[in-house]
Amino acid sequence: MKLAIDAMGGDNAPEQIILGVNRALKENPELVLTVFGDEAKIRTYLDQNSRAEVVHSPDVILGTDEPVRAVRRKKESSLVMMAEAVAKNEAAACVSAGNTGALMAAGLFIVGRIDGVERPALAPTLPTIDGRGFVMLDLGANSDARPEHLLQYAVMGSVYAEKVRGIDNPRVGLLNIGTEEKKGNELTKAAFSLLNGANDLHFIGNVESRDLLNGVADVVVTDGFTGNMVLKTLEGTALSIFSMLKQSLASSLKTKIGAVLLKEELYALKNKMDYAEYGGAGLFGLKAPVIKAHGSSDANAFFHAIEQAYKMAQANVPSIIESQISSGEGESN
Amino acid sequence: MKLAIDAMGGDNAPEQIILGVNRALKENPELVLTVFGDEAKIRTYLDQNSRAEVVHSPDVILGTDEPVRAVRRKKESSLVMMAEAVAKNEAAACVSAGNTGALMAAGLFIVGRIDGVERPALAPTLPTIDGRGFVMLDLGANSDARPEHLLQYAVMGSVYAEKVRGIDNPRVGLLNIGTEEKKGNELTKAAFSLLNGANDLHFIGNVESRDLLNGVADVVVTDGFTGNMVLKTLEGTALSIFSMLKQSLASSLKTKIGAVLLKEELYALKNKMDYAEYGGAGLFGLKAPVIKAHGSSDANAFFHAIEQAYKMAQANVPSIIESQISSGEGESN
Repeated sequence: MKLAIDAMGGDNAPEQIILGVNRALKENPELVLTVFGDEAKIRTYLDQNSRAEVVHSPDVILGTDEPVRAVRRKKESSLVMMAEAVAKNEAAACVSAGNTGALMAAGLFIVGRIDGVERPALAPTLPTIDGRGFVMLDLGANSDARPEHLLQYAVMGSVYAEKVRGIDNPRVGLLNIGTEEKKGNELTKAAFSLLNGANDLHFIGNVESRDLLNGVADVVVTDGFTGNMVLKTLEGTALSIFSMLKQSLASSLKTKIGAVLLKEELYALKNKMDYAEYGGAGLFGLKAPVIKAHGSSDANAFFHAIEQAYKMAQANVPSIIESQISSGEGESN
Repeated sequence: MKLAIDAMGGDNAPEQIILGVNRALKENPELVLTVFGDEAKIRTYLDQNSRAEVVHSPDVILGTDEPVRAVRRKKESSLVMMAEAVAKNEAAACVSAGNTGALMAAGLFIVGRIDGVERPALAPTLPTIDGRGFVMLDLGANSDARPEHLLQYAVMGSVYAEKVRGIDNPRVGLLNIGTEEKKGNELTKAAFSLLNGANDLHFIGNVESRDLLNGVADVVVTDGFTGNMVLKTLEGTALSIFSMLKQSLASSLKTKIGAVLLKEELYALKNKMDYAEYGGAGLFGLKAPVIKAHGSSDANAFFHAIEQAYKMAQANVPSIIESQISSGEGESN
């Protein structure tokens, strides 16, 4: 199986991207990777391997580029050429750590939506305290959503949780400001009814953001505005606390000694909140797996994003989503 | 000036409520407090003071009561009798640590809305790392909001920040998923235009949730669903991290010694995130100040909530809001 890789996206491209590519090829003897980008730079880091192909792309989409315009105009960028390879069935899936908006635009306009899916959704797997993690969508592919979209997100997230993450009968929760059925805004109230009446979904009701890190559900659905807001709040609060903690620990000789004694534990704690092991964010609802690796991905994070794309392609996730959506799964009784 | 107090609301009522009352009377020689609730219990804790009045109320609204129904049926509850005292101009403001929904219903139906204010908003002052704090609204009085409501929230929050918190020309931010003007959902895009064109508001544009703790604005406006979601995410993340930290610190002899050395700093850190000093959440847009003290308020937190109500009443915040809304302040150029 062949996957397409954008070597030029993200803060640490191409070096860390290619180190991730090297590892993925080493650990997966059946995997072939086509790497798009600046050929000379790529060759500097790429291990000799007959399953590694390099396609030179003279252009690159920057993080600051306006997404839709960049995808339309920069036809010879690594990101667009990678997406074209998927559209032409030369690759089964693709991975980029580049401009999120551009990758979503390339996914939508070049790879294309699955028939019947109204809106693609950006779906990262987020950490929980117990290490199990959960899939949350939409995290911002579309800011506004209708109740039917949330129902489709639930179907797509459940397929992913089951087929790729190996979770039987994944628990689906609706992100809300209270657990009672009548809580929330117009969107969540209508979505609750739809989800509650849906076939073949293991809907467990409303879930609150404060319980997310405790693993309250395997799949959490929400509109893109709320999802993006909650994710940024989680990250921002964690960063603020760790930064205050760091300041406190450096405030005196006594605290510095304390900090040395606690070093390992504090480090382990910070790592628990690390996304890298969970791969990137999937763009669900497209005809082939498109994975957005974190912009700050190092080799390890990018390796996991490749693994994720590979598993999604092997498990035929887009086909299963298509058949479940077209057979009316997730529709109300 | 006389304020009305619900002695029976919250987890620590009436003892901690009355201890807060005692302190407020002691520190404010002009203040008179009418305390509603179980007279015998109240007298157990109330200091002898000619400026303390007790009105016996035979009923109480519980945290589990359905808010609107409870306010309609429990006419002799401490919460309803307190609100009636304000409606009859026997008290200038009121404070309760009880059922939030019931207090909002009593505020709306008994105290009443200011003419011209379409929706009251729940507005707590939240902590920042530098200790300055910021007012955020709406935190859940109304889940759904229209752009015009967000504009009114901005006017009400600005009046409070200036008149009660003493902040000149308070910076108003619109909570959004990015700082660029075009970011967000339909609501925030439309609200951005309204706020940007408003007279006499110091609108600084979109602000992101991850910057809230860093004090990015003095007044942050958002719809009640998003505001409630963000607040719960902030609290939930902070609690999860502190609980993981506590576990880590108790994991071995070495870490326990480290924890002892860091005790003061960690405690100070946790206290930075404490709301108590900032008072309760104001219910803005009503004809008189109505303050919701946190359900878990101790004497200190309740004292600060009384102080807040007192300052709002002294500064005539509802009248100023009324005149600014009716004079079209905050309306577009």
